[in-house]
This record gives sequence, C-alpha cells and structure tokens, in this order.
Amino acid sequence: MAEDPDMPKDSAVEINDTERIDDLRRCGLKIIQDPERFCFGMDAVLLSGFAYSPEGGKLLDIGTGTGILPLLLSAKTPAGHLTGIEIQPGSSDMAARSVSMNGLDDRIDIVCGDVREWDRYFAASSFDVITSNPPYIKTGTGIVNPSDTKALARHESTLTFEDVARISAKLLKTGGKFFLVHRPERLTEILTLLSEIKLEPKRLRIVYPDTQHAPNMILLESVRGGNPGIKVEKPLIINGEDGRYTEELREEYGF
Amino acid sequence: MAEDPDMPKDSAVEINDTERIDDLRRCGLKIIQDPERFCFGMDAVLLSGFAYSPEGGKLLDIGTGTGILPLLLSAKTPAGHLTGIEIQPGSSDMAARSVSMNGLDDRIDIVCGDVREWDRYFAASSFDVITSNPPYIKTGTGIVNPSDTKALARHESTLTFEDVARISAKLLKTGGKFFLVHRPERLTEILTLLSEIKLEPKRLRIVYPDTQHAPNMILLESVRGGNPGIKVEKPLIINGEDGRYTEELREEYGF
Repeated sequence: MAEDPDMPKDSAVEINDTERIDDLRRCGLKIIQDPERFCFGMDAVLLSGFAYSPEGGKLLDIGTGTGILPLLLSAKTPAGHLTGIEIQPGSSDMAARSVSMNGLDDRIDIVCGDVREWDRYFAASSFDVITSNPPYIKTGTGIVNPSDTKALARHESTLTFEDVARISAKLLKTGGKFFLVHRPERLTEILTLLSEIKLEPKRLRIVYPDTQHAPNMILLESVRGGNPGIKVEKPLIINGEDGRYTEELREEYGF
Repeated sequence: MAEDPDMPKDSAVEINDTERIDDLRRCGLKIIQDPERFCFGMDAVLLSGFAYSPEGGKLLDIGTGTGILPLLLSAKTPAGHLTGIEIQPGSSDMAARSVSMNGLDDRIDIVCGDVREWDRYFAASSFDVITSNPPYIKTGTGIVNPSDTKALARHESTLTFEDVARISAKLLKTGGKFFLVHRPERLTEILTLLSEIKLEPKRLRIVYPDTQHAPNMILLESVRGGNPGIKVEKPLIINGEDGRYTEELREEYGF
C-alpha cells in the first residue's frame, strides 16, 4: 500500500499536484489519494477482508471516500456490481478517477451525493450487501471545521451512525448483509440500534493492537431480518509477540 | 482448587458422603462441593477477579450456588458485608456450611430463596455491588428435568437473564455496580436490555480460550444510572501459545 515510484504520474487518468497513486497490492489495483486530504486506514482494509458478497451481488459502500472499499471488494468478492456514495466532491472525484484508472467503470459506480437523500439515487430493498466505514466521532465532542475534509471523514457532522444504520435497513433486501467497522466504545449503542431496526447483529470480530491492549476497532456483520444471537469470533490481533504484524495480517490483508 | 487430601472430612462442619472439601488457594479458604450436583467453574473464578467493591460495600451474589463468589470476594475485595441468594436448598445449605467452615458467618449471609421475590429479603436500592453467574442457556433450547440440580444451574428455567438484570436494577443504589459473566452469543440482548433499564454497560472483557478461537465467556460491568459509552478491555486469554495457562491466569487467578 506504499506509493508506487514506478507508476507514471502522467498515465491515462489525470492527477493533481498534491495527489499520488498508491499500489493496493491486490490484483494490480491502484488508488489515487491526497495526503493533504484523507488517506484510507487499516480500518477500511480490515473491513474489506471481513465483508463478503454473494456471487453477482449488488453492493453499496456508504461514505466511500476515495473508493477504497469498492476497489478492494471488486477484487476480494464475487459481487456483480459495486456502488460507492460520497458527499465530498473532491473525494468522490478521486474515487471515480481511480475506478477508471483500474478499468472498472463497468463494475463500479461512484455517486457524489448525500446518502440521507438515498431515494434520489437508489431503490428501497435493492442491495445484497452494504459496507460502511463511517465517521467515528460524535459531533459535539470536538471542534469541527466543515471545510476540513479530514474532519468530515472522521466526525459525524454530516452523517451519524444512526443515519447509516437506518438507511442501510431501508436499502438492503431481506437477508441482505450490513458490514461495519467502528469503535469499541460505541458497541452498546450500535448493537442496540441495529437490533431495534431489525438489522440483527450476527457476527462480531474485535480488533486488538496486540494481546496486552484494549481493542481499537470492531468489525460487525448484521443481517436484515436476521434472528437474534451473535457469534463473537476469534480476536483479530494486529501485532504479534515478536512486534511484527501477525501472520493473518500479512497473509490475508497484505500488510 | 483441587481436592485437598489433608483436609479431614470430620472437621467442625459436617459434610455428606458425596461431598468433598476443596481448597480455594486464596487466604486459606475452603469450599464444600458435591461432584454429583454442580461444581463451580472457571467462569465464577474469573468473575471474582473482574468484580470489585468499595471499602465496606454491601454486596449481593444472585444465584450463588455453593457460595463460591461471596467466599472469593470476601478475600479479594474490601466489601463489608456479602450476601448470596440461592433457590436450591441443597446448594444453599452447602454454601452456608462453607461460610461457617471458613469462620465468615459475621461477614457472609446465605439466603435460601427465590430472588424474584426479592422484596421478601432485601430493600430496594440497598446494595453497592451485585454479582451474578446466572444460568446461561435459554429454556426451550434443551430438555430440562426440574429435579436436576445441574440443569437448574445451567438453564434459565427458574431465573432468566432478564430477571437478574431487572432485579439488580431495583436492588442497586444509584452508581452501584453490576458484574456479570455470561456467554458471547447473548451479547446483543444483554447490552440492549441493560442499557434500556439504565444499568448502563461500562466495561467489557472478552474471554478467549486462546488467540485462535472464538471466545466462550464475557465479563461485564454495568453501572446503575451510568452514562452511555463502554470500555472494551484487553482480551482475557486463557491458554498461551505454549499451551499453559497465561501468566495473568496463573498470577491473578491462581490457576
């Protein structure tokens, strides 16, 4: 996922001066990012390994940023068609250019828009899979400049977890899957709300930096109309006792 | 926690033919158990390490069985007075004899009764701490013989999780702590109900048999009237990579 020095900056797709093209180390995929704006993190990559899709499934990524999830999921899953929706024009433009650069225009759509107005873009109960790596931080718990693209990606100023959950419940088919990465401190609120809106939490994986520290992420699969009862999976541990990424991180996620 | 061959069976407290006296390896504490009935498990011991009490606090253990939690917590915490309530006369009788055998009659009370009739025994909002290692298995998911003491301790036939939670919310003072050990598959239901009845989940520790397998227990601290937001702690791992109990299990819990 490092910058690729061999990638010519004057390839078919135009990039701005502050942008760079990074190699995703997966099926030759590349992504346009801008370090002055927001670069994807390990959370997005872990979610791309946790999520799955039925063969030919219709997938939506809410708050797609620069398109990291549709790009990775196009390689990792047999999803038929993938859509990413992003409210920030700068990020969605980068996402669309990355899709073109990878020759994936027929499989991935990038929509620049506000998912809270979902019925302008999508039909109810039309998706098999929804993924989201939403803003983590509640508004009111930090100062947010609305023109700051990094802040918008991190703070719930335009999109709360409750928005994402309620919209996903409307857009998923019965039995459709909702895959989320979020923060452990929101666990009660997340499980309670999803259960209430019949997007039943079914599979939880807790991500620990190592065996001696508190977790910093949770990965959650919910099913629209699923029965109660959750499977908590084996821990996902980032760093092994030798201080290196664990074998799973290296083999499954390419770190 | 093994049977102690040096412990004379004809000590001051009488024990039955099928009973035995086990050394708790903590401050010289012993416990009477009957392998034909139900012996405490690692869950109770882990809960005794996870729970804590204010100095001189009033503590109640709901479904105390043979009294393992009041006994261990009398040694591990500065609780002033501890009560265990148990519906099965055979178990509560063993618990009461264990309390006497350890010379703890002035600090621990064992009540034989049904905690669903809590107002026969206790005043509302009168406890600082409540612990519970309740039956884990929902009724209707297995055949239960009501005369089977092992089944009663494992199945929710006389006491459901919802009972334990709602009774605890009534018996705790504002700010009082509720400590629970339960199964991971019930996590959504547990967090949702506790949050709804204002017994806010504040601290969660997930117990994994090792780093390669799904967890088999959760330890949860809730606070009556607490604010939303949960701290998920570092994992509690039972077996290390060398196949032995991890250092924490050996040092903190005496395994």
